[in-house]
Amino acid sequence: MDVPRILDAIRSPADLKVLDNEELAILAREIRQEIVATTSVTGGHVASSLGAVDIIVALESLLDMPRDRVVFDVGHQAYAHKLLTGRREAFKTLRTYGGLSGFTKPSESPYDVHPSGHASDSLSIATGLAKARQLKGTDEKVVALIGDASLAGGMAFEALNYMGNEQLPLVVILNDNEMSISRNVGALMKHLGNIRANSHYREAREGLQAAMEQGGPAARGLLGFGKNMKESLKQMVIPHTMIYESLGIVCTAPIDGHNIAELRDVLSLVLEMDGPALVHVVTRKGEGYEPARRDPEAFHGTGPYDIATGRALKKPGRAPSYTEVFGAALADEAANDADVVAITAAMTGGTGLKTFAAEFPSRFVDVGIAEEQAVGMAAGLSSGGKKPVVALYSTFMQRAVDQMIIDVALPEANVVFAFDRAGLVGDDGPTHHGVFDMVYTRMVPNMRALAPSDEAELVHALHTALILEGPVSLRYPRGEAEGAPLPDVPEILEVGKSRTVREGDDVTLLAFGRMVGQARVAAELLSAEGIECRVVDMRWVKPLDEEAIAAAAACRLVVTVEEGVIAGGAGEGVLEVLARQGATTPAVTLGIPDRFIGQGPVSQLFADLGLNAEGIAATVREALR
Amino acid sequence: MDVPRILDAIRSPADLKVLDNEELAILAREIRQEIVATTSVTGGHVASSLGAVDIIVALESLLDMPRDRVVFDVGHQAYAHKLLTGRREAFKTLRTYGGLSGFTKPSESPYDVHPSGHASDSLSIATGLAKARQLKGTDEKVVALIGDASLAGGMAFEALNYMGNEQLPLVVILNDNEMSISRNVGALMKHLGNIRANSHYREAREGLQAAMEQGGPAARGLLGFGKNMKESLKQMVIPHTMIYESLGIVCTAPIDGHNIAELRDVLSLVLEMDGPALVHVVTRKGEGYEPARRDPEAFHGTGPYDIATGRALKKPGRAPSYTEVFGAALADEAANDADVVAITAAMTGGTGLKTFAAEFPSRFVDVGIAEEQAVGMAAGLSSGGKKPVVALYSTFMQRAVDQMIIDVALPEANVVFAFDRAGLVGDDGPTHHGVFDMVYTRMVPNMRALAPSDEAELVHALHTALILEGPVSLRYPRGEAEGAPLPDVPEILEVGKSRTVREGDDVTLLAFGRMVGQARVAAELLSAEGIECRVVDMRWVKPLDEEAIAAAAACRLVVTVEEGVIAGGAGEGVLEVLARQGATTPAVTLGIPDRFIGQGPVSQLFADLGLNAEGIAATVREALR
Repeated sequence: MDVPRILDAIRSPADLKVLDNEELAILAREIRQEIVATTSVTGGHVASSLGAVDIIVALESLLDMPRDRVVFDVGHQAYAHKLLTGRREAFKTLRTYGGLSGFTKPSESPYDVHPSGHASDSLSIATGLAKARQLKGTDEKVVALIGDASLAGGMAFEALNYMGNEQLPLVVILNDNEMSISRNVGALMKHLGNIRANSHYREAREGLQAAMEQGGPAARGLLGFGKNMKESLKQMVIPHTMIYESLGIVCTAPIDGHNIAELRDVLSLVLEMDGPALVHVVTRKGEGYEPARRDPEAFHGTGPYDIATGRALKKPGRAPSYTEVFGAALADEAANDADVVAITAAMTGGTGLKTFAAEFPSRFVDVGIAEEQAVGMAAGLSSGGKKPVVALYSTFMQRAVDQMIIDVALPEANVVFAFDRAGLVGDDGPTHHGVFDMVYTRMVPNMRALAPSDEAELVHALHTALILEGPVSLRYPRGEAEGAPLPDVPEILEVGKSRTVREGDDVTLLAFGRMVGQARVAAELLSAEGIECRVVDMRWVKPLDEEAIAAAAACRLVVTVEEGVIAGGAGEGVLEVLARQGATTPAVTLGIPDRFIGQGPVSQLFADLGLNAEGIAATVREALR
Repeated sequence: MDVPRILDAIRSPADLKVLDNEELAILAREIRQEIVATTSVTGGHVASSLGAVDIIVALESLLDMPRDRVVFDVGHQAYAHKLLTGRREAFKTLRTYGGLSGFTKPSESPYDVHPSGHASDSLSIATGLAKARQLKGTDEKVVALIGDASLAGGMAFEALNYMGNEQLPLVVILNDNEMSISRNVGALMKHLGNIRANSHYREAREGLQAAMEQGGPAARGLLGFGKNMKESLKQMVIPHTMIYESLGIVCTAPIDGHNIAELRDVLSLVLEMDGPALVHVVTRKGEGYEPARRDPEAFHGTGPYDIATGRALKKPGRAPSYTEVFGAALADEAANDADVVAITAAMTGGTGLKTFAAEFPSRFVDVGIAEEQAVGMAAGLSSGGKKPVVALYSTFMQRAVDQMIIDVALPEANVVFAFDRAGLVGDDGPTHHGVFDMVYTRMVPNMRALAPSDEAELVHALHTALILEGPVSLRYPRGEAEGAPLPDVPEILEVGKSRTVREGDDVTLLAFGRMVGQARVAAELLSAEGIECRVVDMRWVKPLDEEAIAAAAACRLVVTVEEGVIAGGAGEGVLEVLARQGATTPAVTLGIPDRFIGQGPVSQLFADLGLNAEGIAATVREALR
């Protein structure tokens, strides 16, 4: 007979109040089992979620939620939070179409404060909540949970600078998982590593434990302890050298992030403070599940896997991913051109740069989660005579739009932007779809923008971007490419010239990126009905091929198809060219409509949005009617 | 008879090599006189440029330029640099149409590294230059000069984090002018203030001076001193508690930024180091010109002034500025609604918030130069039940596009964005024109965007934005408003509804913001020629008034007029609506073309771009031909 699980009795964090530390530890184990059971089917962010379970259990057992507010940075570590806040039944739908988000999401639950997904914003959100609390004269707690990698982002520093100055009442829990130090990104991580590694670490913990045995339980629960509390806490936890103390933030010595008793003792004290405090918690990614402990990087974001072995269950793709093709092509370019430098922002694997990093370590730059630095540094490298290639996910490039405008485009720096995961990304949903990059590159003078339609075109596009003077961007989707044979020698694409991939005189489909493939199939469907479509692979989002557009205007209908928002996108650019040319041909712009798009299989999302071959064909039929 | 000036003999920094400290000090005085003489006529950034003269003279006397690279943060303090680098004759054209830029500008001089104007990017540029130096195996110096306020920006922190980790060979000169502390923005500034104020300050300076007398001159000029130099320097300058030392950056104690001998001694040592160093230099804004010393804020950016008294020479405007109207209207709104909170990013005066700050100090937030924090904190305030209004210059909002998308628009937070200096700003030129905001607000789902056409409309727009649920932006230009009478009671504007300000059936001019005024005059000009134009004040950039657009399509011609880039702008949005409505009416989109726009009087720039009444009329005539 099965022993009933504690987890099954938890409907909200209020139910944690009756549990003691031992029961909470059992609960944490059950949560880990649930996370592994679910993500082995759905995939997900396993390693970080497992690492944060004890922090979340300890924290939420002390809070009055949802009145008290917890802001999760990035939010992919919040699975335990979901399981504790009324979403246990729904948890099996994690990251599926119509199911629970893989991140916190206010429209999903009143326990979720903000739509997380982009790193380093949690502290800013928390300063706003703490300021609102001050203005209202209320006393709800405000807590932010942030990882060491996210803390290195400039936005997090801006928030720390503000909260320290204003002495805002909020608690920052630094989830310092030792993984990051191995990647050796940024001086801040070294600093944290030193704090963990030096002798003070043990001393501080022993001092802390001793102090807790005496003062901990007595001090716990005392309200309004105020300024004195800060002093007593400082004595108890033995402050260490942490840069944030210079900014007026009380910092604790590192504590064990998998010891629920210790976590609750320290957190219960810190939660009573009336100024900003940072609790330094050391955790291990993948804690409690051996395969994830062994290879936390593989279990950062994973697809379905076999629980016993941890082995991925994904079926082998027919084609390489765009990311892989890009990584190999860039390494080839670098072998032929010593000036090529690759820059990424904590996305080495995600942007396919592992080979490059191994082959050209001195020419590989990982700035950590710091997109502004990535682009600004690229401008400096160009000024120093190098050819930097900044490889980022399209959605995260949104963090460096100003740098693209002022530091790169205005001086016409030789910077290549490689926007990976451009378009719809699938399971990660609205915060991760890369649907704005065509707009914010189009609007910037001196920018040229390529949208390769398959992996062979991607190789040509990268080569072209590196040959050209001045800034050039290229965008390509997440996941498996189209299966096009890769060229032996990359070609230089003529700037602003499209290629016609199918002839037809009734309708012209002007397609961008992988929409070219859908447009070709749509043309076949329509041909069977007697409607002949020309299909043009536009290749360039900017400058647009005005000759191809003029030729299109001679048909009965022009349809643009792009994997990005319609508002401000390439299709509107085509309309502007048509208007300038004096064309009066009916035109339709297909793309992402003016709403945030949810999660789900990309093919499903395309179907919903009318961006697959069927949808394009239906649009043409309707427009010709 | 006039004594010949040293300045007149300086053709490049190489000419500084033959001067001793005393002569350099005389030169610095001459430069200050030249700056005052010129800016009293042209206007400019007087206080900061005067404060940085000695640093620039001392630094450039030690360098081999343009081989050695100096990156100026913001760049409005670089007037002395311009005078030393072959631009003495041209200096009188500062900030004029076709003249010298008020910032560094690579296309103006090989001595200018990057187009400065947006704060906090200099350190990232410098990391790129230093990395390029490493890769090339060369030994040119890389120096960044940054103010304390800029150092608080997140991008600067990201760069420090990177350079500390990589131990890149570059020198950061922190120009710490005591002004910033009086504004009390950010914990970092408090930290710097403490360093300046505490007893170590004097001790360090005395220790430094003693050390310099012994080791300074001997050590100077020694190349390749390397790691040992770092140690000896540390001993000499007595390191103080500076947060950047935690990041692996050697920091000096504060030195006198107006003592050329001291500056040269320290800089000559630091320039030989092979890792990152930060030289903490204390300066006074406006040094050497008493009116600017007394009121550095008035002399931050000023128009022409009387040298003897420092009094501004500007003629009184006919109308208040948009900024003033906004500030007064927001204070009125706040008086009626206790939930209104104003947020700015080091632009209290510039965004008209001084009255608000004085009347509602607890509801006024200045986060310093930290736009990401401003927008993220606004999202948190909204989540806490408040109605934050984020007032920024349009051009600086480019720093927080991602935060607008993810933190504000996705959760439909009640955040109002007030984009001051939207459109062309005049003398500050390409880095300061606010010409992209209509594009990056249009592209974001859930955003609504207003473009009031005069100051009365601005009052209505602000009121409407505060009444509506969800995020709303409003944009308005720099400088004098249109002279429209201000309403006693603000109105609530219907979402997505325009107003027709002139009837006519031949042509419809769909105008946004202050372009409505130009369109009305154009309509009068054309009416005299028998062409009758309807003029529509569109009011909303998003959502667009589709009924008004449908009505416009019944005319012979539709012309959109906006003060923003055409690519992705409101005009293209109108084209998309027309296409969706099946209209075949010829249409023209007027706006900022696809190039960066230089500096000059706004009326001159409008004339150049065909965006004044004459230009609009000419476009209509041409299109009807």
